Amino acid sequence: MPSISLELKTAMSDSAAEVERLMALLLPETGMAEQKLFDSMRYGALGGGKRLRPFLVMSSAKLFGVSDKAATRTAAAVEFIHCYSLIHDDLPAMDNSDLRRGKPTVHKAFDDATAVLAGDALLTYAFEILADRETHEDPNVRCNLVTALSRAAGSTGMVGGQMLDLIAETTPLDIGAITRLQRMKTGELIAFSCEAGAILGKAQPPQRQALRAFAHDLGLAFQIIDDLLDAEGSEARTGKSVGRDEKAGKATFVSILGHERARAQANLLADQAVRHLGIFEGRAKNLEQVARFVVERDF
Amino acid sequence: MPSISLELKTAMSDSAAEVERLMALLLPETGMAEQKLFDSMRYGALGGGKRLRPFLVMSSAKLFGVSDKAATRTAAAVEFIHCYSLIHDDLPAMDNSDLRRGKPTVHKAFDDATAVLAGDALLTYAFEILADRETHEDPNVRCNLVTALSRAAGSTGMVGGQMLDLIAETTPLDIGAITRLQRMKTGELIAFSCEAGAILGKAQPPQRQALRAFAHDLGLAFQIIDDLLDAEGSEARTGKSVGRDEKAGKATFVSILGHERARAQANLLADQAVRHLGIFEGRAKNLEQVARFVVERDF
Repeated sequence: MPSISLELKTAMSDSAAEVERLMALLLPETGMAEQKLFDSMRYGALGGGKRLRPFLVMSSAKLFGVSDKAATRTAAAVEFIHCYSLIHDDLPAMDNSDLRRGKPTVHKAFDDATAVLAGDALLTYAFEILADRETHEDPNVRCNLVTALSRAAGSTGMVGGQMLDLIAETTPLDIGAITRLQRMKTGELIAFSCEAGAILGKAQPPQRQALRAFAHDLGLAFQIIDDLLDAEGSEARTGKSVGRDEKAGKATFVSILGHERARAQANLLADQAVRHLGIFEGRAKNLEQVARFVVERDF
Repeated sequence: MPSISLELKTAMSDSAAEVERLMALLLPETGMAEQKLFDSMRYGALGGGKRLRPFLVMSSAKLFGVSDKAATRTAAAVEFIHCYSLIHDDLPAMDNSDLRRGKPTVHKAFDDATAVLAGDALLTYAFEILADRETHEDPNVRCNLVTALSRAAGSTGMVGGQMLDLIAETTPLDIGAITRLQRMKTGELIAFSCEAGAILGKAQPPQRQALRAFAHDLGLAFQIIDDLLDAEGSEARTGKSVGRDEKAGKATFVSILGHERARAQANLLADQAVRHLGIFEGRAKNLEQVARFVVERDF
């Protein structure tokens, strides 16, 4: 297996640094009495993570000549949604995780109530950012972003998937049900990230559809590898609690397919994802490489 | 003190029924594997509450000839935000309340994890509803709604106020700090509800400002009465746990001002609220009456 190219590594860390700068600016240290809320939001959102979703936004935006400002703000909004979901997911009432990105989780570093509020505030803020004139001059584009992100993040997407994930702890799922669960839980937000460039750049429908198809395969491949890392990985390498699915007796791609077939399936999906990018005639190098990265990563 | 007029009672229950019908339509029973999520959202959002915020939206919208559909959808979005905040507020990690609107709270009727997700989903859904073309033909209006609601509901508004409320359990607050806390915690969402009509109807700035000033006085009066009901009320009458502030040793308007001065202050605020409506030359009867209702209610 070839290792991740230096080119992709540089592109990803440049994009992560750019989005991180904006995220820090968007989360001010107010010095007001409620500063603890902003501290917990910053703690949960800044200084960590692969920033995969922002990279997908930035890469898809580049395909359509979208301004850096529009792309970075949209990337920050998506990442705030992702971070809020991790904060709530880690709560004792949910996954009860103590470790995330190599640090104590938000409810460990602060307290449960503050973690609930930090998540709520980040979620709300994502929509404030998207609806702001600063994000795009065309209000139709801003509305389209809010619509697409809310659908991807809400009951028909990520939150619905998390509900299914809870149900999976007590109800055995078959491979079809797990695929639907993962499409909702992680796939929809990844799909939004890839489509965001097309929304911002008012792309033609076939291009937007190609990005959506790419994202769906990418998201599934990503999740299969996540399951493999959870089953095989170490906390030191992944920076989060591992072995949780097995302990919870939860059906995953790995528990149903076995390690080898799961990895083969992830590779197949990555190949398929790349083929959807054909419509861009070689201009989507970043996205092609990210599909490779997703199945080759060990963290 | 005059009792609440029959006219207002009828107007409030008509508006509540209309918004409730739409809320029920917006929260479908999907029959999918994640149905439990929708059940908990319906449980937390439907069949109860004074629907004060929707009534404010509907009443302010009438001042500017806004369509019923636009007003009702906006009212539903605000109420979903209000209901999500109650669901999260009632969690064991937060206020740990077992009773709400005379029924077990969402985490009691379902479980803590489902309550977290139901709140997240309702919050997200509010923005999906506002950004939808169905709410208003003008995308600028829809963006303005999303912007105003997210600011009212997020870290600079309701969630920030809830953080202050938590801090108030261990830090003594003076009357200025309590006023700021309540403006954020309940005032901003009430202000949005009153301004929503002006946003939907593209009203002139002085009219929007008058509604905002009205709402700020109304919100504070509302909160003082809430504190009084918490201190004096019974669970049977209010349908929720009472005496919580005193038990928590929390400073409130009542603990600082005493019962009599608190009530006098609420009445003063209600008078002041009504005066801000002068600009509408008697056309804002519903809002005038609601200011009276807020200080006269016993639930």
